[in-house]
Amino acid sequence: MIDLRSDTLTRPTAAMRAAMADAAVGDDVYAEDPTIAELESRVAALLGHEAGLFCATGSLANVLGVATHVSAGQEVLCDAGAHIARAEMGAHGALSGVTMRTWVTPDGRVDVGQVGSLLSPDAGPYLVSTACVEIENTHNFGGGTIQPWDDLVAVSSLVRDAGVGLHLDGARLWNAHVATGIPMGDYGALFDTVSVCFSKGMGAPIGSVLVGSAEAMAAARVYRKRLGAGWRQAGLLAAACLHALDHHIDRLADDHAAARAFAAPLIAAGLPVVAPDTNIVVVPTGDRPAAHVVAAAAERGVALSAVGRAWSARSPTST
Amino acid sequence: MIDLRSDTLTRPTAAMRAAMADAAVGDDVYAEDPTIAELESRVAALLGHEAGLFCATGSLANVLGVATHVSAGQEVLCDAGAHIARAEMGAHGALSGVTMRTWVTPDGRVDVGQVGSLLSPDAGPYLVSTACVEIENTHNFGGGTIQPWDDLVAVSSLVRDAGVGLHLDGARLWNAHVATGIPMGDYGALFDTVSVCFSKGMGAPIGSVLVGSAEAMAAARVYRKRLGAGWRQAGLLAAACLHALDHHIDRLADDHAAARAFAAPLIAAGLPVVAPDTNIVVVPTGDRPAAHVVAAAAERGVALSAVGRAWSARSPTST
Amino acid sequence: MIDLRSDTLTRPTAAMRAAMADAAVGDDVYAEDPTIAELESRVAALLGHEAGLFCATGSLANVLGVATHVSAGQEVLCDAGAHIARAEMGAHGALSGVTMRTWVTPDGRVDVGQVGSLLSPDAGPYLVSTACVEIENTHNFGGGTIQPWDDLVAVSSLVRDAGVGLHLDGARLWNAHVATGIPMGDYGALFDTVSVCFSKGMGAPIGSVLVGSAEAMAAARVYRKRLGAGWRQAGLLAAACLHALDHHIDRLADDHAAARAFAAPLIAAGLPVVAPDTNIVVVPTGDRPAAHVVAAAAERGVALSAVGRAWSARSPTST
Amino acid sequence: MIDLRSDTLTRPTAAMRAAMADAAVGDDVYAEDPTIAELESRVAALLGHEAGLFCATGSLANVLGVATHVSAGQEVLCDAGAHIARAEMGAHGALSGVTMRTWVTPDGRVDVGQVGSLLSPDAGPYLVSTACVEIENTHNFGGGTIQPWDDLVAVSSLVRDAGVGLHLDGARLWNAHVATGIPMGDYGALFDTVSVCFSKGMGAPIGSVLVGSAEAMAAARVYRKRLGAGWRQAGLLAAACLHALDHHIDRLADDHAAARAFAAPLIAAGLPVVAPDTNIVVVPTGDRPAAHVVAAAAERGVALSAVGRAWSARSPTST
Repeated sequence: MIDLRSDTLTRPTAAMRAAMADAAVGDDVYAEDPTIAELESRVAALLGHEAGLFCATGSLANVLGVATHVSAGQEVLCDAGAHIARAEMGAHGALSGVTMRTWVTPDGRVDVGQVGSLLSPDAGPYLVSTACVEIENTHNFGGGTIQPWDDLVAVSSLVRDAGVGLHLDGARLWNAHVATGIPMGDYGALFDTVSVCFSKGMGAPIGSVLVGSAEAMAAARVYRKRLGAGWRQAGLLAAACLHALDHHIDRLADDHAAARAFAAPLIAAGLPVVAPDTNIVVVPTGDRPAAHVVAAAAERGVALSAVGRAWSARSPTST
Repeated sequence: MIDLRSDTLTRPTAAMRAAMADAAVGDDVYAEDPTIAELESRVAALLGHEAGLFCATGSLANVLGVATHVSAGQEVLCDAGAHIARAEMGAHGALSGVTMRTWVTPDGRVDVGQVGSLLSPDAGPYLVSTACVEIENTHNFGGGTIQPWDDLVAVSSLVRDAGVGLHLDGARLWNAHVATGIPMGDYGALFDTVSVCFSKGMGAPIGSVLVGSAEAMAAARVYRKRLGAGWRQAGLLAAACLHALDHHIDRLADDHAAARAFAAPLIAAGLPVVAPDTNIVVVPTGDRPAAHVVAAAAERGVALSAVGRAWSARSPTST
Repeated sequence: MIDLRSDTLTRPTAAMRAAMADAAVGDDVYAEDPTIAELESRVAALLGHEAGLFCATGSLANVLGVATHVSAGQEVLCDAGAHIARAEMGAHGALSGVTMRTWVTPDGRVDVGQVGSLLSPDAGPYLVSTACVEIENTHNFGGGTIQPWDDLVAVSSLVRDAGVGLHLDGARLWNAHVATGIPMGDYGALFDTVSVCFSKGMGAPIGSVLVGSAEAMAAARVYRKRLGAGWRQAGLLAAACLHALDHHIDRLADDHAAARAFAAPLIAAGLPVVAPDTNIVVVPTGDRPAAHVVAAAAERGVALSAVGRAWSARSPTST
Repeated sequence: MIDLRSDTLTRPTAAMRAAMADAAVGDDVYAEDPTIAELESRVAALLGHEAGLFCATGSLANVLGVATHVSAGQEVLCDAGAHIARAEMGAHGALSGVTMRTWVTPDGRVDVGQVGSLLSPDAGPYLVSTACVEIENTHNFGGGTIQPWDDLVAVSSLVRDAGVGLHLDGARLWNAHVATGIPMGDYGALFDTVSVCFSKGMGAPIGSVLVGSAEAMAAARVYRKRLGAGWRQAGLLAAACLHALDHHIDRLADDHAAARAFAAPLIAAGLPVVAPDTNIVVVPTGDRPAAHVVAAAAERGVALSAVGRAWSARSPTST
């Protein structure tokens, strides 16, 4: 079986396993794990932020990140295809009491005009106040698309001028960085909080890091414990992430090349496939339900993911 | 002072007060208030539904209505300018744990294509499932706009085919009914739950009614009590609503005429004002903050409402 | 039918209805209703607090009051038979995210020693912090019992020394005041927030008032709107409460006398009934389910309430 | 430094690290990790339940377990010193909307009479319904106390007769099992859901398992994802837990012996210390704040934990 469902399926290499086996550990509920401390500190520095917090999943890092900006009853704005809107099981509303409004784009690339029209900071006692804008880069359901730099700069300026928090779901920011050459710290500087993930293309078995101000991370640490996510000797997992930092960033270029190679014959065959920005290839299935295509591919030994009905309404020319 | 801020400022007439003073009452927590029973039953019949529930506000009726369809962690879809998104203080997320995605339109009129692209029923254990679509008619922040009948029919068909609940915020459905001549029951038939309000143009001091199936209303009654909204001898308030049902529907046409008369000289003067569908006149203020215009009008003895920054990004020709 | 189920069944008198019919009103969402302003101000003054907030129910006033002290994830301590624990449908947890621990007493009278053993203020980042203690006076499920003054003073001192908020559910504080002669203001001075209700023995159809600091009431007003409880021209209801303030406090002594008269023959007949402190008579039904006794009484034309299984485990000698 | 703060500080042995380094892994969000599948299956069988779910923390397992029984607005009953009440940061209320009432005991041992007096199943539309009773064995804040078997049998019978769910926080059930010789499965048979933890005396770096019916575990898996806890290749961590199952249960007897040896001279010196049931020694500090004693011990090279003010009110003879 050739498994192309997701980059979350990556497995640790032997070298990564060896690094884990040797890691020093401590009780992270008491912030006493030295390997975690090193990871949090290195990732924070890489992104130009004060502090970091090690998390079991990207979803957790996003829930914590958004919650550092938004109180119950306030809103976060994001794209209608954002991971936080579609793939985190409603956590922001169900757990944090956050409400959400969304802008709509065909490929997940931020529409600064729509952000501006939605933005409602300090809306007073009768209306919902916008407390956070969230951007995803690369954009997963958009097809691994890279946010254009100028748009990120514009939205950062707009949102910060409004006094509103700005969170980056950078689960695959590594991919954007490798594809564009823009330093991680340049991306990081545009946002108040950033999550990055090590269990996708970076190959670690588990682990995301949230970064932001020291104050925000202290609050996130308390909320992390409330979410049942205050783990203990997680330094073994942090060691895998440190290994990925040292050895796996550059190799994401191989994934991008593989994705382009996969898409090329489909494009040549006239399918409405767009050349991928990074490591995700989306194949619109037209009138045919995606699940049927997935089943047919499975019979031929290729595992794919159906990413949902919404895609059938997406015009191929708009991607 | 000429107060044009909102139709929520209407006050009960002498005849309405007299009806209230004479009303029979009972304890509505035990469903023993005869005047409330009559109101709930009449409104349910008017809208073609099984049962009704008397509520202190339109916001409450919407919170209860949406919650009959959506569990914590599921989503409701609505317009980005919807009352439930902007003016209910994030209640759906903060209280019910509901998450929200929005489509974006300039005047609140439903965009069936966008609804279709967002709709994600039964999305499985990894993605958020759409459990409700919400429509507002007339649309408050859209400028009292009437939803085109054909669009309502199309969205109702689309949403019901998907097995998703459909809630109508009909706080001002009376206005749409009076302006179009479409019977209340025809509107009601397209939706699974409907809220209507009596404290706007209908002139009652307090009161909304939610209608739907008997089962849904029984669940809503329990949730109403949890929200601290299980009031006691509210039959006096129901009497005002019954009076409005008998005497105040037709007179909404006067409000519509007044709104058109108010808008006409503004349009004639070249201001980017759109002739109102119903009883709300929106005056885009261009580069000038709405709050400044409101202050200037107040000095001249006219009270207006600033409806927020979002409007400044709205093209006058699109309304 | 003689209806003895609850003092919530009281109905407005003709004089109260007349007062309502004449009341001046305004839009209370904008805090512009003059009759409500008068009521809030008078009740605040009566209880020695800065400000008040008019609410549709006692449950709402308690939810708002507790929420002024307690953030999501913090705890309120109360009696296991408290109205906020048993009769508010879990609102404090479900809506405000508040957690609760309870002390256990046979008749609802506060046990200062247990409060002291539970109190955990400022418990740090690993344990739940107590942010509020709640007392109910008179205690509904305890049988209308009056909290002994010395215990209230002791618990107030204990809780305030710990820097923890103190809320009084005074739905029936009027009854305690009338029975003991202790001024309302003396009770009020012991607490940070107090709710009082007008729709029980006081005879108003609807209405409770929460009092506290001006800052707390401003926050409660915003949360009230989120709960869908920001009503409009509720001055008519406030007028009934003002009428009750002027005319119905003293007459509660009649209710107390009636309750004693009702209990006397039961006691004389050897039933394990305790002479009532105020207006509630509890009749332990021993091994016989309370619902059976209620049904038997109904056949004889007397409506009673079964107050739940918990009572069957209550020793008559301990009441 | 001799670190006696908590059994959560245990670190993986070399053998355990080796087992982790060799573990087969897969993506657990898709339930495709073979090592996790083996762990879940073995723990479920050990406790006599259908299915298991691997979790990052005991708190998470408890949040998920309680939520399989209790909907928002319903209640869980537990001891006032329970881990779920004191040490899970209010998660059950803040995340699941669950409300709580507590019984009060000096040492955490269940008081069946109090459970019976609190139990309110199916309480109707006006009162909170009890949906779960929770027991902790051994009881952490009670001092590692073992629940007497007869009391567990009695409370299980009482609660199941009432149709109410029953959850066991068995984070340290291993300790009870080793100390009493009662099989894990006998304990498991009394409860509907059980959590056990591997990162305390069992020595795994991370990991708890929740067991229950297959249906309950499927629901818990969805909620786990909502909580941001749907981790990926966690088989490495499961391998450590499997290693602990095979090698570390019996050695808990050594911990118990060590605790008794630690307590003996304190008891001999006349301190109000109780001989420990298992691996926790509680030293009441009388009028002296526990934090002062902890500081003094630290100066002498011994790290202890202050377990909070509540203990100062605890009579030494009652432990």
